[in-house]
Amino acid sequence: MNINISRLQQRIDDLAGLSDNTGAGVTRVIFSDADMQARAVMKKLASNLDLLVREDAVGNLFMRWEGSEPDRKSVATGSHIDAIPHAGKFDGVVGVLGALEAVNSLQEDGYRPKRSIEVISFTSEEPTRFGIGCLGSRILSGSLSAPSASALKDDDGVTLGEWLQRRGFAENTLDSARLVNGVYDAFVELHIEQGPRLEAEDLDIGIVDRIAGPSTTRVVLKGAGGHAGAVMMSERNDTLAAAGEIILAAERVARESESPHTVATVGKLNNFPNAVNSIPREVLLEIDLRDTDPDSWRGALESLNGEIQEISSRRGVDCILHRINEDPPAICDPDLVMQISELSTALGYSHKIIPSHAYHDSLFMAQICPTTMIFIPSRDGISHTPEEYSTPEQIQKGVAMLAGILRARSE
Amino acid sequence: MNINISRLQQRIDDLAGLSDNTGAGVTRVIFSDADMQARAVMKKLASNLDLLVREDAVGNLFMRWEGSEPDRKSVATGSHIDAIPHAGKFDGVVGVLGALEAVNSLQEDGYRPKRSIEVISFTSEEPTRFGIGCLGSRILSGSLSAPSASALKDDDGVTLGEWLQRRGFAENTLDSARLVNGVYDAFVELHIEQGPRLEAEDLDIGIVDRIAGPSTTRVVLKGAGGHAGAVMMSERNDTLAAAGEIILAAERVARESESPHTVATVGKLNNFPNAVNSIPREVLLEIDLRDTDPDSWRGALESLNGEIQEISSRRGVDCILHRINEDPPAICDPDLVMQISELSTALGYSHKIIPSHAYHDSLFMAQICPTTMIFIPSRDGISHTPEEYSTPEQIQKGVAMLAGILRARSE
Repeated sequence: MNINISRLQQRIDDLAGLSDNTGAGVTRVIFSDADMQARAVMKKLASNLDLLVREDAVGNLFMRWEGSEPDRKSVATGSHIDAIPHAGKFDGVVGVLGALEAVNSLQEDGYRPKRSIEVISFTSEEPTRFGIGCLGSRILSGSLSAPSASALKDDDGVTLGEWLQRRGFAENTLDSARLVNGVYDAFVELHIEQGPRLEAEDLDIGIVDRIAGPSTTRVVLKGAGGHAGAVMMSERNDTLAAAGEIILAAERVARESESPHTVATVGKLNNFPNAVNSIPREVLLEIDLRDTDPDSWRGALESLNGEIQEISSRRGVDCILHRINEDPPAICDPDLVMQISELSTALGYSHKIIPSHAYHDSLFMAQICPTTMIFIPSRDGISHTPEEYSTPEQIQKGVAMLAGILRARSE
Repeated sequence: MNINISRLQQRIDDLAGLSDNTGAGVTRVIFSDADMQARAVMKKLASNLDLLVREDAVGNLFMRWEGSEPDRKSVATGSHIDAIPHAGKFDGVVGVLGALEAVNSLQEDGYRPKRSIEVISFTSEEPTRFGIGCLGSRILSGSLSAPSASALKDDDGVTLGEWLQRRGFAENTLDSARLVNGVYDAFVELHIEQGPRLEAEDLDIGIVDRIAGPSTTRVVLKGAGGHAGAVMMSERNDTLAAAGEIILAAERVARESESPHTVATVGKLNNFPNAVNSIPREVLLEIDLRDTDPDSWRGALESLNGEIQEISSRRGVDCILHRINEDPPAICDPDLVMQISELSTALGYSHKIIPSHAYHDSLFMAQICPTTMIFIPSRDGISHTPEEYSTPEQIQKGVAMLAGILRARSE
């Protein structure tokens, strides 16, 4: 089966022209003018392929190739077309335009599916506007309730509900976006790796068997300030010293985890008043902890919570701990992974079964149907910058893999 | 001998009216209009007391009551009249206006000194404009060379040299401000405690036997960034984790010091890029370490240096360590401390011999002559805010002590 890579490459380049700014790279924030224009491009492409188009209440876009046995569960694929400020043109887009190209190629090949095939373009995988990633797939999978979603605010204080009204979506029926569990026969997301492993090992394809579960914990420590010269060591409740212990505890919990994939990072630290001769009286920390194994992920989170409480209590520092998000890891469907692996071998592509440490809409789709992801290499492992790049040949192989599995599951 | 406290109180209140801003508290930054006006007030008061007035090349103001044996070493006192933004009206001012009141009272009492008595108002004890405290006394004692001083810049990039020219001082003779060692028989500084100890123990007077030596160390750590999900724990060179260890090392070095007066504080920490899902790739720390004992102060600084190097090296993080300032502790003159202690007993004042953990111009005067300080209580230990307060009775006792020692040393 022939994948028309020059046609796909042209579509990727054209879509990159729709950007919220004229600087380097692509910026497409959810519900911006460029995002709305990009949605229109998707709908037109789908229409040209005779796909049935629907948008749900939060703007997830479903493009359905009706099969000859439409009552059976559909086979689904897709990704996102929104982009963080000054991003590359491949992240997400390869999984949406690539899926449409797979359908196009299958049609040109004369194939007619029994099960329907659905290409999904998810709303706001990137957290740019509302501070939360995978907005569309969270709602669709029931991980985020309609009222909670509707109340999310952007930096200007405009809620998601207001944005939906502005852009003509049915905000008052937001809960209708929830899909039932088991709705799809399978969901397979094609995506760039955004990491260096495939390139380093000169592999064509990565097949994802696990997706790390993210969590973000905000810790606010309040202690006693004072002059750095006047308060003796034994009289202190220094919040930055408590923070120092918490940073090391987070590192230790991850290192000592039974899972080799547990990672913990204190990426953000704000110190107050942040003057050299003042004992810090307030510190804010944000801790990112992820793991591909649900048990060790939960265990690490609990250990870290316990350590933070013990450190704060021992040091006489008040501690407010807020779990901003906490999404369990996903185990991909083993049969689906095996099937794709065999397909790769049949096509003569080198591949490896790997975990995804970043998360994607697949993390949430895995809650409602058998799911996996197909990765293609990223040059230098770079993503989220204008330098993000995968070669036409790499993209072509990924789309061929996707077309193959869509065909195999829908026959 | 009678101290006219209402006259002194009026002068303190009047001086507080000279401020660089109209908000709460007093702001008098060196060489501002308010500072120049306050200098004029001092000169007029000195002139009314028939004192000889001179200003050196950096603006230290000397007000000399000529004794009957002027060839003998003078007895010196003084403090500063500059004030950080929104400060109180007592810090420094009590030691300058109080000294002039002591002279005034001695004159009214018919006293005629043999040794001359000099009241010094030091330039820029506060670091507000040039980022370095005790500018005048550093130059005067030879701790800061004329070329280094002249090149100091304020936030607008204007050098001290340029400021001196603006305000009519002889910038090209800055090295003439250096005094010879042993120039004074004694230097005694009257100052508010700026701490809670005297008030807590209901004492009238503190007599300072040691002044903690300050040091500021800037540490810049550069490591490897990366996505919080993509880089495994064993592959990291996380600068914030290194900083966490350094914070705890600073605390431990101070706690484990043989001197109970060693204190170490990481007051400032800037983290970059400071995003929850990014491994920190650069951290700036500023560490304040002080001690009243020269040996343990130096030992603690060396230990901390060693720990910082070991931590950075073990973690594969580049470390640039810059000692911003480093001034050894001062041991006050034991005979002078004893003499003032006996004077306090004779006057019926309760007192205690205590270290000063904050530093003052006395830290530098101690390098060139026998030195000590007289502390009076600060309400709630508060200073550097508009709420800073000492009662008229507390100030009166401090000035009586100062008058007594100036008389005793100049007879």
